[in-house]
Amino acid sequence: MSAPVSPSASPSSSPSSSSPGSVSVSVLGLGMMGSALASALLDAGHRVTVWNRTFARTGPLADRGAVAVRTAAEAVAASELVILCLLDNGNVREVLDSLGEEAAGRTLVNLTNGTPRQARDLAVRAAGRGARYLDGGIMAVPQMIAGPAAYVFYSGDEKAFGEYESALAAFGGAQFVGADAGFAALYDIALLTGMYGMVVGVLQAFALARTENIPATEVAGPLTDWVGAMLTGARPWAEAIDSGEHLTDVSSLAVNHAAVPNFVETFRDQGLDPAFFEQLQKLLERGIERGHGADGLSRLADLLKK
Amino acid sequence: MSAPVSPSASPSSSPSSSSPGSVSVSVLGLGMMGSALASALLDAGHRVTVWNRTFARTGPLADRGAVAVRTAAEAVAASELVILCLLDNGNVREVLDSLGEEAAGRTLVNLTNGTPRQARDLAVRAAGRGARYLDGGIMAVPQMIAGPAAYVFYSGDEKAFGEYESALAAFGGAQFVGADAGFAALYDIALLTGMYGMVVGVLQAFALARTENIPATEVAGPLTDWVGAMLTGARPWAEAIDSGEHLTDVSSLAVNHAAVPNFVETFRDQGLDPAFFEQLQKLLERGIERGHGADGLSRLADLLKK
Repeated sequence: MSAPVSPSASPSSSPSSSSPGSVSVSVLGLGMMGSALASALLDAGHRVTVWNRTFARTGPLADRGAVAVRTAAEAVAASELVILCLLDNGNVREVLDSLGEEAAGRTLVNLTNGTPRQARDLAVRAAGRGARYLDGGIMAVPQMIAGPAAYVFYSGDEKAFGEYESALAAFGGAQFVGADAGFAALYDIALLTGMYGMVVGVLQAFALARTENIPATEVAGPLTDWVGAMLTGARPWAEAIDSGEHLTDVSSLAVNHAAVPNFVETFRDQGLDPAFFEQLQKLLERGIERGHGADGLSRLADLLKK
Repeated sequence: MSAPVSPSASPSSSPSSSSPGSVSVSVLGLGMMGSALASALLDAGHRVTVWNRTFARTGPLADRGAVAVRTAAEAVAASELVILCLLDNGNVREVLDSLGEEAAGRTLVNLTNGTPRQARDLAVRAAGRGARYLDGGIMAVPQMIAGPAAYVFYSGDEKAFGEYESALAAFGGAQFVGADAGFAALYDIALLTGMYGMVVGVLQAFALARTENIPATEVAGPLTDWVGAMLTGARPWAEAIDSGEHLTDVSSLAVNHAAVPNFVETFRDQGLDPAFFEQLQKLLERGIERGHGADGLSRLADLLKK
């Protein structure tokens, strides 16, 4: 295939300059994350084509050797591997629906944030265009891309993953989690859910300290040590959840149910919103009503079911 | 002072058998935690008197050498150092109010779970009885007491803390956090708040995995690695909170505000209660309304103020 020539493309972006093992990759969407992905692909020696709705954002990548094109269809036509990193999956659907023959035989890797249901819908639409589909959940902020801690969950077409795994390694670790296209988003959302809980817990702790003019930095050390130590409880909870054996002699729902009113009262006394603990107390009450008072906190995972 | 003799006290509990450096300590309240505390004091060679509303629970400790008494007043009379570990601070107040001359000159260490305001009220009541008051927040479950990871926050009478620090070390580490009697409870509640956030986040993540029959144990590894890695953000957030400089180029309130609807939608799609994320979204909206969209998540600590 021939890469479409863009006015802003530098001579070094021609396929002839690429190293062996490199593939042609298009990146659609050049927000902070999309730009970081395209940049990582360039660093890894791949032939990169970029497209963004606002063309001006292609400039810095074109300067580094990417071919900038003016339409999504041109970008899809340009490369065997197509990375999508748009604002949301509504935009991805729009792009997909706008394509003609260009999509046939392409491998689409959608790294746009979204839900499992959206990913499954897009997999069906991609198949309708004759394209292979992988969905991905990026476990990194843009600044971390290509660094040692970054990794991406992938799900969908396992054969396509196998073929492009080494190219995708430009972003960081690559972990395939299932043929169900929705699973990458599910893993991504599961991990971020854990993170959001921690974030809200830690920030509430700091807010509480500040109500008494205690510096947050004074609390940060003991707080992170404590939360980190308690995080080792996650594996035993997972085992309890998988086995359905929640009985505990350490910290039962009943014990926690007795303690949480102190948190609500303290938050009120200190002028802070106790909504988070009120929500937790509702869950604990549900557990006790259903006869699980002697069970450990792992039982809460069941109680979240509607 | 003479220890009151109890029918269930064994001969080894007489003061004459105690080692040098040992002090006389009474423990009021023998639930799981109170029993663990009394046991740790016995192990450390102190002369221990115990009281519990239900007398039968004194048995195992009396067998190990503690003096068991029938009234709280006798227990307070028996020892210079008095540990209170009751169901709640309502019970502590009741015990305090029931005392006569026995309390004068005693050091009361209240390790009952409670709020900062309750601790301050009890400090005033203790002073009214001529007793010195320390409040404590135990960062351990009963099984951890006297182990390497257990520690206790203390606040209140700093001189009393200095005098009894080595005796209190029987429980684990001892950290004095301020002359304000309420501070130990504040630190305790702050750390537990961080923990509850993490717990709810992690258990929601497991619940999500289970909706697709993915074993929680399969998610546990990546989840704890991820949450642990993100926990290192706590110190920078603390610095942002203390300085009031929340601007970020990593993960702004606006970026998170755009992402959270995916979480709410996924929880709904998978039949889980999205209440936690709805609550988070309200906080993020509040931040954006107030013009903090470009700030990092650390800004949420401010937004919790009512």
